[in-house]
Amino acid sequence: MKNIEEYKEKVNYALKNFLNNKLSKDSRYSEEIKELIENVAEFNMRGGKRIRPILIIFAYKCFKDEEHKIIDASICIELMQAYLLIHDDIIDNSDLRRGKPAMHKIYEKKFGKHFGLSMGILAGDLCNHYMYDSIIETKFSDTEKLNAISYVNWTANREIYGQSLDILPGFEEIKEEDILKIYELKTATYTSQGPIYIGCALADAPKDKIEKMQKYAYNIGIAFQLQDDLNGVFSKEEEIGKPVDSDIKEGKKTLLIAKTLELCSKQEKSFILSKYGRQEISEADIKEIRKIIKKSGAFDYCKNRFYEFIENGKNEIINLQLKEDGKKFLIELADYVKNLF
Amino acid sequence: MKNIEEYKEKVNYALKNFLNNKLSKDSRYSEEIKELIENVAEFNMRGGKRIRPILIIFAYKCFKDEEHKIIDASICIELMQAYLLIHDDIIDNSDLRRGKPAMHKIYEKKFGKHFGLSMGILAGDLCNHYMYDSIIETKFSDTEKLNAISYVNWTANREIYGQSLDILPGFEEIKEEDILKIYELKTATYTSQGPIYIGCALADAPKDKIEKMQKYAYNIGIAFQLQDDLNGVFSKEEEIGKPVDSDIKEGKKTLLIAKTLELCSKQEKSFILSKYGRQEISEADIKEIRKIIKKSGAFDYCKNRFYEFIENGKNEIINLQLKEDGKKFLIELADYVKNLF
Repeated sequence: MKNIEEYKEKVNYALKNFLNNKLSKDSRYSEEIKELIENVAEFNMRGGKRIRPILIIFAYKCFKDEEHKIIDASICIELMQAYLLIHDDIIDNSDLRRGKPAMHKIYEKKFGKHFGLSMGILAGDLCNHYMYDSIIETKFSDTEKLNAISYVNWTANREIYGQSLDILPGFEEIKEEDILKIYELKTATYTSQGPIYIGCALADAPKDKIEKMQKYAYNIGIAFQLQDDLNGVFSKEEEIGKPVDSDIKEGKKTLLIAKTLELCSKQEKSFILSKYGRQEISEADIKEIRKIIKKSGAFDYCKNRFYEFIENGKNEIINLQLKEDGKKFLIELADYVKNLF
Repeated sequence: MKNIEEYKEKVNYALKNFLNNKLSKDSRYSEEIKELIENVAEFNMRGGKRIRPILIIFAYKCFKDEEHKIIDASICIELMQAYLLIHDDIIDNSDLRRGKPAMHKIYEKKFGKHFGLSMGILAGDLCNHYMYDSIIETKFSDTEKLNAISYVNWTANREIYGQSLDILPGFEEIKEEDILKIYELKTATYTSQGPIYIGCALADAPKDKIEKMQKYAYNIGIAFQLQDDLNGVFSKEEEIGKPVDSDIKEGKKTLLIAKTLELCSKQEKSFILSKYGRQEISEADIKEIRKIIKKSGAFDYCKNRFYEFIENGKNEIINLQLKEDGKKFLIELADYVKNLF
């Protein structure tokens, strides 16, 4: 998607600018607060595809041509991501984020483990408050800002609900319906539903169109998670940028594994339950789990569900009257997610 | 203050109502989310004097007579407090909050220490998002809501800055100026400055009056912290509801101790530095520290500063034209804080 590179630069510029303003305004409090803002800025600028802010921009462009204001607003979802990831890294005991130390690890080096944890909590909280400011400081009308803030808040709130379900131990008897609920709360909400709501709110989009676009967003968001699950077990490390055994080692609660447990034999089920989620699992056992996933039909089931979600998503908007640039992006994005698998 | 009891009931009613609505709306997601909201509600309803929301109400009543809308909005500061306390309790390793288990302790019982910590982070985050909703759901105009939200966000953001300074180890060479900066960020911001800003924003108060009231708020907020420090070392446990040696055992970074270290002899200084902040400190050593604090003149210094802040605060508003009910409350509140010592 040629748009992505171009808009990524624009988003990065706006995000950097926002964080520089914070730095020059709030560094006056103390050296340590200056350092905290610098760490938060470095974390935010580590990269990533910036697909979510770009989706805000193009949801807006489904209704409006002007784009300067919306680029400034779009960074809210990156600040949200930083907030969520910083807290997630504590919760998941992750030491690294995009190849560099997780936030709590940066501070752990200074005064030990508990200080690292404490500063991780606070740095995440700070990104959260910056997120609201990023909307407040734009040039939209008060009503538009308030609507956008209410969707930003809705998005982050649902993420917290989703995360609280995701960290519950055990998935032995978890049903497809429960997994899809977690996927909706944890992935679709901030990957696609939130961005679409925020872009539409700032464009004063009509309700009926927002509803259709939301259905698109739901489907694409779930599809995005499904390809992540499938790739997380069957891709090559160099393709997905993380070890392909990490989902299995971490015991990730996926539709793929839930479906496998539903479809496989009793013996295979106890084998998987005794191995899944163990860091020390052997290469041979991982291979065996992959084999069971394929043999059970769970792999094909999830693959088919994935394509279904993509098509359902596209169908929601294909006949919808939207401005060309915006609509074209939404369709291309669906195909982009399709091609991730 | 006879107003406090009456308005406390009104605030409790509004807060309970808000949380019940969340429960009936969001319980549908799952049993575990229902339980999370119930835990958050129980935590919020544990009590407390509700002085901060009442201050929002009376800041508003300095300009407007109507009060129904403002009571609903005032609960934002209680939700903020819950958010900050839940995260603080993790950071400070506190097991109890108002005589009941801290949030992370509630969840620790379920699936162990790390799960408790994780759910504590998420429950705090959730209260934070509820805080914005509590303003969004009121009946104020969009512009009033947006202004209030921007002050809510300012308040919470500064709290995070303050907290990040407060948890830095060491206070050997910390100056009065640095301590007052922490007091401003950590205490005055959400005890008085934030509530005054929020109440004034929702009342569309004129800028010049807000400025004066802010100076009042700064002074009363710092005074509030100073009496807390003095009482924390010299009061009786039954008067302040916590052990009077806990400030010394926890090594609380107070003006009282900073001033003592500045004024006492070199020998006394090394004695204090070797004992302050140690949980296992003996009763005799605590007595000795109390003696040094008094002898050094730090106690009298802080007491005088305390009265100064109270008087300075009152002087900022004594000649200001404000509606009678509101102004009377502000003056009474200053006297109330004065009488806490």
